Amino acid sequence: MTKTRIGIAGYGNLGRSAAIGVRQFPDLELAAVLTRRDPSSIERATPGVKVFALDQAASLADRVDVMLLCGGSLSDLPEQGPWLAGLFHTVDGYDTHARIPEYFAAMDQAGRAAGKLSVVAAGWDPGLLSLQRLLGRAFLPQGSDETFWGKGVSQGHSDAIRRVRGVLDARQYTIPREEAVEAVRQGLEPELSTADKHYRECFVVAEPDADREQVANEIRAMPHYFAEYETTVHFISAEEMARDHGGLPHSGQMLRTGRTGQQRENRHRLSYSMTLDSNPDFTAHVLLACARAAMRMAREGQSGARTLFDIPPAYLSSLSSEQLRKQLL
Amino acid sequence: MTKTRIGIAGYGNLGRSAAIGVRQFPDLELAAVLTRRDPSSIERATPGVKVFALDQAASLADRVDVMLLCGGSLSDLPEQGPWLAGLFHTVDGYDTHARIPEYFAAMDQAGRAAGKLSVVAAGWDPGLLSLQRLLGRAFLPQGSDETFWGKGVSQGHSDAIRRVRGVLDARQYTIPREEAVEAVRQGLEPELSTADKHYRECFVVAEPDADREQVANEIRAMPHYFAEYETTVHFISAEEMARDHGGLPHSGQMLRTGRTGQQRENRHRLSYSMTLDSNPDFTAHVLLACARAAMRMAREGQSGARTLFDIPPAYLSSLSSEQLRKQLL
Repeated sequence: MTKTRIGIAGYGNLGRSAAIGVRQFPDLELAAVLTRRDPSSIERATPGVKVFALDQAASLADRVDVMLLCGGSLSDLPEQGPWLAGLFHTVDGYDTHARIPEYFAAMDQAGRAAGKLSVVAAGWDPGLLSLQRLLGRAFLPQGSDETFWGKGVSQGHSDAIRRVRGVLDARQYTIPREEAVEAVRQGLEPELSTADKHYRECFVVAEPDADREQVANEIRAMPHYFAEYETTVHFISAEEMARDHGGLPHSGQMLRTGRTGQQRENRHRLSYSMTLDSNPDFTAHVLLACARAAMRMAREGQSGARTLFDIPPAYLSSLSSEQLRKQLL
Repeated sequence: MTKTRIGIAGYGNLGRSAAIGVRQFPDLELAAVLTRRDPSSIERATPGVKVFALDQAASLADRVDVMLLCGGSLSDLPEQGPWLAGLFHTVDGYDTHARIPEYFAAMDQAGRAAGKLSVVAAGWDPGLLSLQRLLGRAFLPQGSDETFWGKGVSQGHSDAIRRVRGVLDARQYTIPREEAVEAVRQGLEPELSTADKHYRECFVVAEPDADREQVANEIRAMPHYFAEYETTVHFISAEEMARDHGGLPHSGQMLRTGRTGQQRENRHRLSYSMTLDSNPDFTAHVLLACARAAMRMAREGQSGARTLFDIPPAYLSSLSSEQLRKQLL
């Protein structure tokens, strides 16, 4: 079997997780890492990985089948995505929910023009939890669902705190309100905003001479990020940060409740939950399975953008359809 | 929009649930019920439903787009399935796991020959839980998973008890062992047989002069059904049976644990659970969503057999791809 050659564009947390994760996928092999940093610095840190400058991408067309786009959604992907989708089949975890239609359209256009296939917005949310929302609504049309995020580290919120004057380092945990989860579980179908469902806990290493009360107030007042939420701020030492908050765990759950029957007398509950020690590791694994699916769709002659909603699930697996039916159905 | 016209072949629990459930699917309409009983007996009980004799099926080709096969897996589907798959697009919940490859092949051949598309073995297991097993293994290749069934009524086991001499009525509940679920939840990856994971509780209405000890022993000794399991038998009155065991609830859960990272230091857990007040209602809803998907695949010119593994999830939804990306991704 010819292995699918994977490229990784962007070597931050997600890119590093993908470079390690690919070893668990027998039909994929790592062919290239692309970075905006000095390639030799990465080659020294990760022996055996072939590293290229990002702007050399166009010269790698005969080395890489599927490029994983591991840059950030805020500024990297909107710019790199359509460019790279014109050169390779691609997979990304674009996660700015509100702008997905716009990003999808740009990727679709670039891929169609080049005859390449892109899987966009894969990961766990958007991604696997979105898929569970779709299934829950398809099977139980009359009902309601809620998604809860956490307990886990939000990197966007952690970054936002780091921009506050007087802050050296920060970690923000998003935590679901247990009473909200319980109300949904009991089928009470409460009307809940994201802020009703979650609270935010911040761990901050402050500069020695910072006014802590001022820093805490500034964090709690940040619109969109914290102002709408119950937010607590804890000041800790750099040592405590390194010791207790080194990982990037996350969790999420989706609960769908629906009713059936002549008088809607029967209640049904579908619930999906994920508990992840490492958000980037798991996201990288989802991207890798999608790279396998992208290659299969591309071999059928498909091009343009797709999401997890469009992928026949069998394409995500290394097993044949016969094996899947015999072993897993 | 032209609605997809649904036929229901077999008007037992599942067929009746489908006839009610179809009202929740705005793009589907019930066109015909086919039965081996006297059609007029069903027309009287369910006004407004058009009922035909099953052997008239061939004459309904211009009335029905997708036929839901609602007969039993033991003897009805192996015979009716390939015949009806040669006349209509079909969807069924064939659930004899060990014989799926054989049934799939027969349905595939019949459908291809006739240019019709069949979705086979849909429902919750095989079906939705199978899909969760596939996703868990695709995203976390190094790990293990377990599926638990119950607490819920097993109709096959209830039927088996009813065949014991001296038994008037019976209901059998399959119940997961809490300690086994807990061990899997904690990631201990225990080696468990189905009998290690579940026990069986039987409620029996005996004939007045039956030897209850003899009946209980005979139940507990039945190979495949009970002999391998911890099984308890309770004798109750017909009134208690009607009052306490009238429904057909069921439940199921799938837990996947996997590891990632350079030293496999990160653990991840995916868990899916369903709690269903009515097994036939929920199964019927899954079949109805699959009928929608079958129609879409057929319109693309596809024919032959498919499973939930082959269906792009978007095809199960009434929403367009644009709406799905905007609202659910």
